Amino acid sequence: MSPAVATRVVLAVDLGGTTMKGVVVDETGREVADLERPTPTAGVVEALGDLLGELGSVARGQGLTPVGAAVVSPGSVDEGQGVVRYASNLGWRDVPLRDLLEPAVGLPIAVAHDVRTAGLAEWRFGAARGSDDVVLVPIGTGVAAAVVSAGGLVTGATGTAGEFGHIPVVPDGEPCACGQRGCLEVYASGAGVARRYAARTGSVATAREVVARLGSDPDADEVWAEAVTVLARGLAILTLLLDPSVIVLGGGFSHAGEALLVPLGAELRDGLAWRAPPEVAVSRLGDRAGRVGAAVLAFEAAGLGDLVTAWPTS
Amino acid sequence: MSPAVATRVVLAVDLGGTTMKGVVVDETGREVADLERPTPTAGVVEALGDLLGELGSVARGQGLTPVGAAVVSPGSVDEGQGVVRYASNLGWRDVPLRDLLEPAVGLPIAVAHDVRTAGLAEWRFGAARGSDDVVLVPIGTGVAAAVVSAGGLVTGATGTAGEFGHIPVVPDGEPCACGQRGCLEVYASGAGVARRYAARTGSVATAREVVARLGSDPDADEVWAEAVTVLARGLAILTLLLDPSVIVLGGGFSHAGEALLVPLGAELRDGLAWRAPPEVAVSRLGDRAGRVGAAVLAFEAAGLGDLVTAWPTS
Repeated sequence: MSPAVATRVVLAVDLGGTTMKGVVVDETGREVADLERPTPTAGVVEALGDLLGELGSVARGQGLTPVGAAVVSPGSVDEGQGVVRYASNLGWRDVPLRDLLEPAVGLPIAVAHDVRTAGLAEWRFGAARGSDDVVLVPIGTGVAAAVVSAGGLVTGATGTAGEFGHIPVVPDGEPCACGQRGCLEVYASGAGVARRYAARTGSVATAREVVARLGSDPDADEVWAEAVTVLARGLAILTLLLDPSVIVLGGGFSHAGEALLVPLGAELRDGLAWRAPPEVAVSRLGDRAGRVGAAVLAFEAAGLGDLVTAWPTS
Repeated sequence: MSPAVATRVVLAVDLGGTTMKGVVVDETGREVADLERPTPTAGVVEALGDLLGELGSVARGQGLTPVGAAVVSPGSVDEGQGVVRYASNLGWRDVPLRDLLEPAVGLPIAVAHDVRTAGLAEWRFGAARGSDDVVLVPIGTGVAAAVVSAGGLVTGATGTAGEFGHIPVVPDGEPCACGQRGCLEVYASGAGVARRYAARTGSVATAREVVARLGSDPDADEVWAEAVTVLARGLAILTLLLDPSVIVLGGGFSHAGEALLVPLGAELRDGLAWRAPPEVAVSRLGDRAGRVGAAVLAFEAAGLGDLVTAWPTS
């Protein structure tokens, strides 16, 4: 059987501090295979090359033709040059990932920032579809933001735009691991809520467990209320500076549902005295957003970006 | 004498709450005439039409040919539609300024936001030249910001991006005229410094006079130090979210020179523990920035945007 047009695929990897999640995506946007590997403590570039090689083999074994690839990374990424400028979790500084991987893999490879790429996906296929001014805020262990303005991703002069988790929102507040004080994610993140609950009660609980105790545990109520207040203040700042039509919340925090959205919406309205708040929505693509966005970038790297316009929204 | 190519001019008006400043600008960027009129309390659109008519007559009297015009306005402006959505100083809501003025003036007319337009000028011809990621922060009676990201102006979904003066930087802080509390401009603006100094001392002084008393008046020292701290916090937020290569300060506040720039630079460095701060520069175009930017937009409205690329920088 000769490969038909519909057999073109891309290889997309979401590189995290603990796991590398790879998928093979066909030109209709369907994930046709996936592989997951632990991120090694050393030799990450080689491991990435190996994973991309394995994904390519899996694809070819199914009669599919890889045409491009993409790797999305945390940290500070220069998308134009394909260089990871800085990634603390990986111990990377100025790693020319694209130039290192392309010869090994033999495909055009896009390198991009994980959160911005997730924002791209949420904007093209998810909860922010149809709007040209969007902020995606994934809230997990930490907090970041992907900003879309007038239909373009805001990356900044050094590729570090969107460090929403580290904006100072509590003057002289609690210390952050980053070296600053009063950062948003000290209060309003999975790790922040868990740490603050433990500091207050002496008992260990995840943010999800704290949410489950709301209404029956005054300490949980208090820590959560402070998280919501700080997050609302941060969203008010985003709104006033960037005027998005929709803010999309993602990550584990967004699974809190009404316990988050109801008080957050009320506090955001109160914090914006003279303008209406933007819509606040929950991510539709969830954890898949980074990989979906990476697949888009991979098709674009292959010169086949047009195919992506026909992908279904989910 | 028949008009040669070099005699094409545009009419540019900077519409303020108290004054309308109009200039005639030729295709080399030179201001060849100017007229200033008080902003009337009613009939502002008619007064604008009259001023543009007068500017056109002055130009024609000099043998020049008006080819386009622009009006820059405070408030919330929809540049694409040429509509001022909201301008509290003018009592305007949804005023279709372009459609109202074009038939009266008989020229293509651009309508734009005053601060964003000043940012455009500072970016193309002033202190931010050569950078594609810039924030211009004019600090006068109030505070605003114009954001340039990847070479494009950030306007937002409703044309209100850049409301930097109203981001909440002091939780439960002093009330702002906007209805919120703890807004940046309550502390770090000309009006804010004057009001806070008067509240503390019972004596009236302008922000400029407060600066002149630094080192000899502990109340002046304290009010100014708080203004610098709040502004540094705001600039840290801008830096973390937008990652500009340069922040340009304008307005009366920027005339404080070293008294502002030295402590501000130190506090901004301290507030950004893990990244270098962007360059902080002072506006080069000053009060002219809005009119220079308006002239650029007017040439673009006339389909002659290419001419502008040859303008001198100042």
